[in-house]
Order: sequence, then C-alpha cells, then structure tokens
Amino acid sequence: MSKLQKVSIIVIGNEILSGRTIDKNVNFIAKRCDKIGLNLFEVRIIPDEKLVIKDTVLELSKKSDYVFTTGGIGPTHDDITTESIALAFGRKLEINSEAVKRMKAYYKNMKVEFNKARYKMATIPEGAELIDNPVSAAPGFILINVYVLPGVPSILQEMFMTLEHKISSGIKMLVKNIKVKSPEGEIADILEIIQGRYREVTIGSYPFFKPPDIGSMIVLRSLNKNKIQQAFIELLEKFQNAKILYEFD
Amino acid sequence: MSKLQKVSIIVIGNEILSGRTIDKNVNFIAKRCDKIGLNLFEVRIIPDEKLVIKDTVLELSKKSDYVFTTGGIGPTHDDITTESIALAFGRKLEINSEAVKRMKAYYKNMKVEFNKARYKMATIPEGAELIDNPVSAAPGFILINVYVLPGVPSILQEMFMTLEHKISSGIKMLVKNIKVKSPEGEIADILEIIQGRYREVTIGSYPFFKPPDIGSMIVLRSLNKNKIQQAFIELLEKFQNAKILYEFD
Repeated sequence: MSKLQKVSIIVIGNEILSGRTIDKNVNFIAKRCDKIGLNLFEVRIIPDEKLVIKDTVLELSKKSDYVFTTGGIGPTHDDITTESIALAFGRKLEINSEAVKRMKAYYKNMKVEFNKARYKMATIPEGAELIDNPVSAAPGFILINVYVLPGVPSILQEMFMTLEHKISSGIKMLVKNIKVKSPEGEIADILEIIQGRYREVTIGSYPFFKPPDIGSMIVLRSLNKNKIQQAFIELLEKFQNAKILYEFD
Repeated sequence: MSKLQKVSIIVIGNEILSGRTIDKNVNFIAKRCDKIGLNLFEVRIIPDEKLVIKDTVLELSKKSDYVFTTGGIGPTHDDITTESIALAFGRKLEINSEAVKRMKAYYKNMKVEFNKARYKMATIPEGAELIDNPVSAAPGFILINVYVLPGVPSILQEMFMTLEHKISSGIKMLVKNIKVKSPEGEIADILEIIQGRYREVTIGSYPFFKPPDIGSMIVLRSLNKNKIQQAFIELLEKFQNAKILYEFD
C-alpha cells in the first residue's frame, strides 16, 4: 500500500457528531480512492469550529498527498470551512469572478436572486483553483493539496467525479474475497501463517454475526498479482485440509 | 455544549478506509451520547497499525473524558487494538480469569472449542475493567478513560447499552427542528441575526437537495430551555415576516 499516494478526509459538521445526520461521504470517497489507486489512511470528523478546522487541515495537509474536506461551504453563518482554510494557509478571501460568472448563469436560469448570502459561496481564498459543480453551480476549490467539497452527498459525488482524472494514480489495488462459513476463532491460526508468509499481501478478517449466519469474510489486498494469487491458493488449500467450508466469486 | 463531558471515537479498521465496509457505529454512539448528555467532539477512522492506534489513543485520551474505540479486538492476526492500547499506557497483557470464565461458559453452551485464538480475546491489559458482552461473551474493557468495543454493530450496541448507566450525565440537550421550504441562500441573513442574539443556542442549517424538494433543516440546540424557546419563537416570527414557508413538529 505504501506505494500509493496518501489521502485523508475531514468531515466538518456538528450534525454528524450529534448523530442527527448519517455521513455518506466517507464511504463514497473511500470506494473511489480504492478504485483509482489512492490510499485513504485517515478520516476525521470535527465540529464547525474555526480553530479546530484550521489545525486539522494544517496537520493533515502535511501528512497527506490529498486532503478532502466535506461540508461547511454553504451560504449560512455556520458554514465556516472556507474562512478556516484561508486562515490555515494565511490567504485572503476574495470574490472569485469565474465563480460569480458560473453562479450568475445558474441562478438566472433558476430564477433565483444572487444575493449577499449566495455571494459568500463565490468568496474563496486567493490563489485557489475552482472545483466545478455540475449540479448547483457554487464551486468547491483546491488550495495547496486540500480539496474543499460540500456536504450534500449528491452534489459532492458529482463534483468528486470531475476531479478523478486529475488525481487517479492508474495503480490497481488487487482484491480477493473469500467467505468462510466458520467463525474467526476457527481459522485465525491459518490466516496468521499465510499472512506471515506474504508480507506484500494484506489479509483482513471480518466476522459477520447474524445467527444462524455466522462466519468470516477474508479479504486479500495487494499491488502484486503473483503474490496475491499465491497467497489465495495457499489459503484455500489450508482451508480444504482443515475441512473449513468457503466460497468465493 | 461546553458544560458536557467530552467524548471521542476511534474507529479502527482497514475495511472502513478501503470502502469495503460502511461504518455504522459512529452514528449509533453519536446518537446515544446526544441522548445521555455527552458531547461527541471528534471521530477518527484509522488503519490496523499498531503505532497509529497507540498514538491516536494517547492523544485523544488526553483531550477527552471518554474515548470509545471500535474494532480490532477479535481473535485474528489483524486484531491488534488490545496490544496497541496496552502499549499506549505501558501495561502488560494478561489472561483475565473472569473473561475466561465467561467465555468458557458461553463456548461450552455453543459447543465451540475454547482454543488458542479465542484465548487471545480473554487477554487484556493488566488493571483494565471488563465490559460485559451479552451477545457473544468475549468482553471489551476499560483502561483509564478508554472504552474498548468490538466492530460488529449488533454486538457493539448491546455492549454500549450495558455502559450507559455509568457514563450518562443526566443533562438533557434540548433540540428544536424547523423544516424550511426555501434554500439556505434565502434565509441565511435571518439565521445570522438570531444566532448573533443567542450565544447559548447553536443554530445549524442543513440543506436538502432532491429537486423539486429543495430547502433547509434548521436545528436549534441548547442546554438552556428559556433561551432555546425564545430563539425558536423569534426565528418563526422572522420567517413569517419574510413570507418563508416552514413546518415543525
């Protein structure tokens, strides 16, 4: 995994922390990163607090190749992501003329007033690059390695897809799944032996527990095709010898 | 909110970061904390890596009244939460005789062998207090202010419920929801005025965007009954005066 570029996500929103809203963006971004060959190594969920956002963005920006933030870029008083990120990198906020142009065209078409509150969404840190919003015009932005996205999942998803060609590594993570009809306690020794033999393959074991359906999903992940195939075959041999039932796609 | 004791969650699991599994534990714990008067202020999702777990636990233990960890306490090689937490606090691991007793009884009843892999789940840091597992016996544990729970949601939930009487503050967060049939851009100025007037009330605004159903959920939260009621009434008056349509429970 260490060859892959490192991604972190910062979910900004009191509504997630209070339990009012179930986050849907982490899983979406996680899956896309897996697909386009990036390694998501950390997620933080933090409140709408300026200094917390600033510190978290600075910390993760240093540790990551890409940081994605979600939430807090709307027009209301509790949308403070943009100003907090400007603060983090010592940038001034400015009205972005390209953003204004896109939003004006969209609002005209929607017969909606482009008022002061909406101008806030065209106000971004100087030097930032816009992220296109094909759904509702108000853009996200890229500053250094921080990609600033909205919280509404349907909009975030469309915006993320416009970015993928820029950030895709082209590297394909190889994955093999084996569903084992035994609880983890019956197969732990086999997994440990095979994991010990294949350092380039990450073997994960995930119990499922919905009686009477009890068992383990074994997930092999690697960038090395030969190694993952060898590990997969050895694992199946061991399961057969131990009379462990399994299935795979 | 500052009166409430502070909670953080550490989700430990490569399967969440790869997008393979959708976390369900954060929202459960978040809702319960809201219910029992605790303030969830941060969540981290981190990989199954010993030093990352150790550092994250130490950092959040210092910043929190309670830390809940989820995942990584099963019997397989990739379950390294327990040893990482022991390392964080400089504790030895020991076989806990009470845990062994509970698990023996459970496995005998289930006609399952209490083998070496399963003994791993009875091995916890010295001085830790057990968390009862009413579902599948293998306990969690409490060390200092770190509450170590499993990743399987159905088991985590039952175990969490056994803890609530110990950690409930008895303080009730008051919440009022208003569903507004206007996008945020139309009401931002009103929200800002009312938020400015009521510092003891947190006003959140959450857009929904499923055309043609477009609007905003306004959520008022406070520990002060008088203030939240006043803010609520003033907000409704402002909406009425501006001919903004709304509904509330």
